[in-house]
Amino acid sequence: MQSGALSFLPLAEVPEVEPGADLAGLLRQALTATGEALADGDVVVVAQKIVSKSENRYVELASVEPRPEALDLARLCGKDPRVVELVLRESSEVLRVAPNVLIVRHRLGFVVANAAIDQSNLPGGAGRALLLPTDPDASAAGLRQALAQAAGANVAVLISDSFGRPWRLGVTGVCVGCAGLDALADARGTADRNGRPLQVTQIAVADQLCAAATLVGGEAAEGTPLVLVRGVSRNYLSVSRPASVLLRPREQDLFR
Amino acid sequence: MQSGALSFLPLAEVPEVEPGADLAGLLRQALTATGEALADGDVVVVAQKIVSKSENRYVELASVEPRPEALDLARLCGKDPRVVELVLRESSEVLRVAPNVLIVRHRLGFVVANAAIDQSNLPGGAGRALLLPTDPDASAAGLRQALAQAAGANVAVLISDSFGRPWRLGVTGVCVGCAGLDALADARGTADRNGRPLQVTQIAVADQLCAAATLVGGEAAEGTPLVLVRGVSRNYLSVSRPASVLLRPREQDLFR
Repeated sequence: MQSGALSFLPLAEVPEVEPGADLAGLLRQALTATGEALADGDVVVVAQKIVSKSENRYVELASVEPRPEALDLARLCGKDPRVVELVLRESSEVLRVAPNVLIVRHRLGFVVANAAIDQSNLPGGAGRALLLPTDPDASAAGLRQALAQAAGANVAVLISDSFGRPWRLGVTGVCVGCAGLDALADARGTADRNGRPLQVTQIAVADQLCAAATLVGGEAAEGTPLVLVRGVSRNYLSVSRPASVLLRPREQDLFR
Repeated sequence: MQSGALSFLPLAEVPEVEPGADLAGLLRQALTATGEALADGDVVVVAQKIVSKSENRYVELASVEPRPEALDLARLCGKDPRVVELVLRESSEVLRVAPNVLIVRHRLGFVVANAAIDQSNLPGGAGRALLLPTDPDASAAGLRQALAQAAGANVAVLISDSFGRPWRLGVTGVCVGCAGLDALADARGTADRNGRPLQVTQIAVADQLCAAATLVGGEAAEGTPLVLVRGVSRNYLSVSRPASVLLRPREQDLFR
């Protein structure tokens, strides 16, 4: 790879991830099948879906009893009342209600449609839902530690999901869990060549890596579950800050 | 490069871009200096800043006369009234006013802070501002055509800028001009393995490429002005749709 280049390599497909699966082991198998070995400075982007599956974040919709508020919201937005109940359980606040969508603040702090609950391509049929990992930053840290022990390499781990956004159409990859990398690099305090303080002060490094990673390995909306990123600047790797630092404090939120 | 991989290569630095500069020529010089030649399917990401400079989108602040509304808004947000005047000239609507920031709908349709007016690292001192290109999609199409004629290669051109976003901290690269690539790939009409229609229907391809491109070539907030992207799926390259298709129609905007 040329100097200064950034590369995103899709790893070989993993088998269906079962609850309790050893993700670090699966990742190492995928690396071997791809003909790659981890090295210091590598960044691994792991799709939220396989992390949630390994943590058994499945919910059977038949087991969900909607509360009265969920029934009311379901009538307003046209969604399955049991899914609305799950959205409410996963959220701290409902910000907007529109046809087939509830924009909420997730209990983890993310503002996201339908609490990022996943119902696509799940094994066992359409009667199930898959929630975000309980603590994706902790999941990333655990996977990073397991890789350090097994592969002897100091790597970063990002857990990615695809979120919509206001004002612009289409989903983009975002980071919901991060370990071993500065999720939000800080350029504050620097000045430009005219001595003018730089207006752009923070760079969403982890989100930008997850964005490109979702484009790798074909054009499926869900992308490939494991992507190896090489060439990330050492400056971003010398500090480890979790994805939670990407959350804008509520008092700075101009669009509640 | 390995199969399915996506790579982002920073090109050699270009000299200061003067008004009227031939961007296609500068790009070809940078490619030669980097030891690369354009090939069909390549994507070139060009920073908005050098496009605006080549189109002489400079404004001398000393020449700007703020209207009364600009004086009022400047008092509210604490910005230079002349910059506020430029923001108003560039915008169709002011959505939010906060300390040092005006969130507006740009005349091109983007919702962005301070109308994406750039005051950093400009030649000629701190008394100038640089506006977005008049029509960035047309700029991208023109550059693409010039490259096709000069290099004989069918490439895509993306013009990138860095925007903040609500709810999440840090800027990310976004696409403001696109030619030769489907800025917003459509996955509608496909179903998952349970026959359930896929919820994720549109993928912001151009934004995701611009996001990673801004991380290439160091950790400067402004990144490198020319990035060569290889490995983009042919499916995204078989259709050309401009960056304007990324704009969410106003009637679908839940966060005005």
